[in-house]
Formats: sequence, structure tokens, C-alpha cells
Amino acid sequence: MTPLRPGATIGILGGGQLGRMLASAGAQLGFDVLIYSPEEDPPAGRVAAGVWSAAWDDTEALTEFAKACDAVTLEFENVPVRTVEAVEAAGAPVRPGARSLTVSQDRYTEKTFLNAQDIPTARFEPVDGPGDVISALKAVGGTGVLKTRREGYDGKGQAWIRSPEEAEAAWRRIGEAPAILEAAVGFQCEISVIVARSANGETATWAPPRNTHKDGILSLSQVPSGLPKAVEDEARAKAQRLVQALDHVGVLALEYFVLPDGTLLANEFAPRVHNSGHWTPEACQTGQFEQHMRCVAGWPLGSTYRLFDAEMINLIGEAGLVSPASLGPYDTLTLYGKREARPGRKMGHITRRLGPRKD
Amino acid sequence: MTPLRPGATIGILGGGQLGRMLASAGAQLGFDVLIYSPEEDPPAGRVAAGVWSAAWDDTEALTEFAKACDAVTLEFENVPVRTVEAVEAAGAPVRPGARSLTVSQDRYTEKTFLNAQDIPTARFEPVDGPGDVISALKAVGGTGVLKTRREGYDGKGQAWIRSPEEAEAAWRRIGEAPAILEAAVGFQCEISVIVARSANGETATWAPPRNTHKDGILSLSQVPSGLPKAVEDEARAKAQRLVQALDHVGVLALEYFVLPDGTLLANEFAPRVHNSGHWTPEACQTGQFEQHMRCVAGWPLGSTYRLFDAEMINLIGEAGLVSPASLGPYDTLTLYGKREARPGRKMGHITRRLGPRKD
Repeated sequence: MTPLRPGATIGILGGGQLGRMLASAGAQLGFDVLIYSPEEDPPAGRVAAGVWSAAWDDTEALTEFAKACDAVTLEFENVPVRTVEAVEAAGAPVRPGARSLTVSQDRYTEKTFLNAQDIPTARFEPVDGPGDVISALKAVGGTGVLKTRREGYDGKGQAWIRSPEEAEAAWRRIGEAPAILEAAVGFQCEISVIVARSANGETATWAPPRNTHKDGILSLSQVPSGLPKAVEDEARAKAQRLVQALDHVGVLALEYFVLPDGTLLANEFAPRVHNSGHWTPEACQTGQFEQHMRCVAGWPLGSTYRLFDAEMINLIGEAGLVSPASLGPYDTLTLYGKREARPGRKMGHITRRLGPRKD
Repeated sequence: MTPLRPGATIGILGGGQLGRMLASAGAQLGFDVLIYSPEEDPPAGRVAAGVWSAAWDDTEALTEFAKACDAVTLEFENVPVRTVEAVEAAGAPVRPGARSLTVSQDRYTEKTFLNAQDIPTARFEPVDGPGDVISALKAVGGTGVLKTRREGYDGKGQAWIRSPEEAEAAWRRIGEAPAILEAAVGFQCEISVIVARSANGETATWAPPRNTHKDGILSLSQVPSGLPKAVEDEARAKAQRLVQALDHVGVLALEYFVLPDGTLLANEFAPRVHNSGHWTPEACQTGQFEQHMRCVAGWPLGSTYRLFDAEMINLIGEAGLVSPASLGPYDTLTLYGKREARPGRKMGHITRRLGPRKD
């Protein structure tokens, strides 16, 4: 593809914090950025050249939006595939394409696809109705997590089952929707690989962060992970294999459980910039948001070289009402411009420089 | 003053690249940013929450703008003082205040003020009419630069006089406006100090860059400067003295000629973020744009610690039509979103990481 010229217009489907940070990174490269969001006054709209506030199925608005854009991307994987198709039908290329979305929107399809690329996951079984739960529980070894196939994030739509007696309650708790039951994994830690693939098929990964979750929500990402280089290299190689198999264009995040012996089991992937990569703009030559916009623009990738050891601390709920006086000298604050701090809501993050690179 | 809460609104007078980079930095801190500019579709407007396109003397528009803002700042020092007064009258504090503007808008006042703070400059003489040029030329030693007292930048409004015969042409060339004649200085190099002063009077400086100009326009800034630490420390101390004397709030840049023996002669200052500080967002813990917005918000200063050796290359005129493929692996590109590349127009810049800090 012909690279977009500086000054071209890039559209983003979705107007939350990821869209906001993508928009700012795109503007730094000289692009005009337009936001399409069903929300009124989305956070990303306040750093963009324009905002379309309309529904995901408003074909007229999508067509008009697409016509104003030279290329379109998205900030989250649950944009309906039909929305993407409407934008493409109106003449704007969408990156990543429908394939990355289709595969990632359904946990069963996703894990099956991962396994087919020789990227092992924990054992999983489809659960299409309440009658499937008990047999699935046996198959995965007696303990597992029931997860809806679609639309879960930040621990939503998930329920543990530790005995057959808990099956019914779990099924109700996830909303009685088609699901998978995933074997419990005794992991030593969780990591993720943020990987980028350009329109020309070039790939690059960042140092894999070690991720800590609290109440199902990411709370901390640390680099370096402290894992052996061989484990990190394997994690990076698998992520690169995945983006090639998906013909993905843009950034993607692949999450892993790391077993005590260093075995990697992929958990899930998000075909977009990811919370566990929020330290990259400060700590690396090229951050994930700039890199994604380079991919969308058909530009070559930037270097992912890491400059220093760092951790990224999520500011969730009331923690987002941060006092500037509480910031340390090595802290870089990013707030998302959300009007209201609700429990569990991601309000911002801090990237903390821990010191010079030690690896 | 009470620090602004995240989510507050900061207004910027001026919508060029400095306003654009200030707006992005303000948004990262969680502020809503509004732009006021006499230009239609200013570059800063495309990364802000709103734009007022109106004249500097449109009191009604200024009042409305001020009422929408919790604090107001500016991207260039030639905003009319009356404009600032109108915004303040409508209830929004303006940082920096009128004093920094008044002093810096007139070269004679500026240099007199610098000298009064024990910050030496090249010798200068006021030139109020054509009859003053010859006597001024004698007083400064026979060679000098005629500079208009007001509104000059990037080498505009300046003319060299190397003999009495050149006096008349020079006077015409600068537009026959009140001027100063400044003694020629045989300098080894030019440096600048970017300094910030918080609303509480706390100050911080960045490493002074060595600046190279081409056709009167900055083309390159390099850190470290290569000068002895004692010279750099003196330059920093003088800049700190200046912001204290001005009761300045925000970032300010003080430019110096460095004589072969290390003597520092101040050239001029800009009471705002400055082109020679454009490498700070990538190369330092806190960049000049974030720091300025912290000051405007009444927040404490961030650390100005420099992470690596760097140079900043201006992209001027056609050079701004940069091809992404030409970027090196250590280059960070910033483009300003200007629609047209005109000769001498600043279109963007590259911050190049040269390697680990060597000082």
C-alpha cells in the first residue's frame, strides 16, 4: 500500500482512553484524527480534529465518516464486524481487518485459532448450555473458569467453578450465555507481549511486561519481567507468529500464563493497543500508540528499544482523583479525561521510571 | 493558589505548533484544553477540546473564552497585553502574567531589564529615528545589528550594519520602526536555557542546548552543549534569576551568546516554551510542554532529568514534507499539522537519540 502522507486523516472507531492516546500519537505524526463513538463527548474527542457521535449500526453516519478518512482503525475488538464492513464499503481501508476481530471476538474461536498456530493454551471446552457444564468440568480436570464466549473484559462475564455444586450458580452468574470452561492453571506469573505488524508484514515486539491483576483488572505492569530470556524470546516469537497468521496490521497484545517451569500458555489476545503496554511511550524509543498509527498509515515500524526499567500503575476508580503533589520525581502521569470516577473504572495510569536498564 | 483539579479547563492564546504541543501535553495530564486563535483551523485546534477563532481585540469572544477556562496561558509573547487584560478581567488567571509579556515585547525594555538583573548582554543603543543610527553605530564599536524593538522573530526585522554607508539601507530594511542597534559579538556558540517556574516560585532548568541557526532560524539544538559545567551552571542560574525577577509562572527560554572565553552574553528571552526545548519531551523525565501546563495548573514541577544525549533537527519549509521511510531508528518525528509548506516555515522537528548520557 502507498503510505499515507503527513496531513492525511485517520479515523478511530471508539472514543475511550485507547482512542485518546492513539489520537494524540497520530497528531504528533502530523495526521488529522477523527473519532467515531456512540458516546456523547467521548474522552478521545477532546484531543481530535472531529467527532462523530453515532451508533455502531448507523450506516449513514459510518459512510460519511469513512469518506472523511484516508484510513480507519479501532480502539477495541468488540466493534461489530458489520460496522467495519460498512466503513470498508464506503471506501476507507480498516486496519486491522475483519479477520483479527472475528477471531478475537469469540473465546472459543480465538483459542482454537491460537492452538492451530502451535500456541498452546490451557485446556478449554465449549459450554453451549447448562447441560454442558458438568461434563466440561470433568474434561478440564475438576476446576475451571467459566467465561462467556463474547464481550467479556476486565474479568466481566467470568466465574470460577471449583466443584460440580458451583456449576449452576456460575452459569447464572455469567448471564447464561454461550461460554467456554477453561482449566485452572497454576501459574507463577502473567506476562503479555505487545507486538506490531506493519502493512508490509514487518513485525516488532516490546519487552514483555509482568502483569498483576486485582479483581480481574490489570493493576501493574513491570519491565523487565524477571523471566529468563529464553522464555521471553519464546513469548515474543509466538506473538509474531500470531500476527502473521492473522494478517494483522497494527498493534496486538497476547497474554500468557507462565507456569512454574517456564511453560507458556496463551490466555487471550486483543487486536489493538493494550493496557499492559501503556509504559511504552515513556520507556521506549517508539510507544505502542505511535507504532499502531504508523501501521495504520502504511509507514515503516519504529524501534521498540527500551530505554529504562519501568512499571506502569493503573489508576482505577477513586485512585484516578490523583493529587499532583503525590507524584514522585520519576512518575509520568496520564489521565484519560473521564468526567466521573466509578469503581473499577480506568481513570489513568502512572509510568514510573525505576532506573537504568539492567538487562 | 489552589492547584487545578484534573479535568479542569486550560485555555491557550494562539494556535500554532507551540499551542498544539501544549494542548497535547495538557490533555495527557487530564485537562480539557481550549484554543483561542485569530486563525481559522489552527493546528492546535485539531488536538483540543474546542477552538475560538476570533481576533485579539474581540472583547466579547475573549470574555466568553475566559469564562470557559479555569486558567489561561499563551503560546507566544506577542499576544497584545490588552488581550491578556481582557481575559483576566473576565475572571480567568493568565499565566505567565502581563509583566513577562510587557518586558519581552520590546527589545530595549528587555535588555535593560536583563542588565538590571546582572545578566549582561551585548552593548546596545536605542534607535528612535534614522538620525540615531550613525551615533549608535559609533557607540557599539562600528559594527552591529539593527533590530526592531517590537515583533521580530526568526531573524525578521533585523539588518547588519558593517559601515556607516550601510546605515540608511538597514533602517529601510527593518521597516523604519523604533529599533535598537546591538554590538556585533564574536561568539564561539549559542546556547539557551529553558527554565520553568511554578506558581509557588519553585524553579527548574533543563540541560542547556547548543543552538545552530540558518538564515536566522533555529536549525539544530544539541545536548549536552559540550561547554564546561561552570558555564552551563552560570547560564542556568541567570535564567532562574530572571524568572524570579519577572515573577514569571511557566516556562521561559533565555538565549545566550557564548564568547570564546566562556563569557555569557544574554541575547533575548521568550516567556514561553521554545523551539530549542523541543527535544525535552523525548529526552527528559518531564518535557517543557508538560512542565508549562503543570505551572499554569498550579501543580508542582516535574523532574527535568535528562535521560540521553540528543539533538533536535528542525524541519523547515519543504523539509517538512518528510518521508517516513527516511526516519532513522533513533528518530522521533513531530509534525505540526500545517496545511502548506512555505519557505522558512517551521513544519516539524525530529528528536534524535544520540546515545546514553555521557556527562
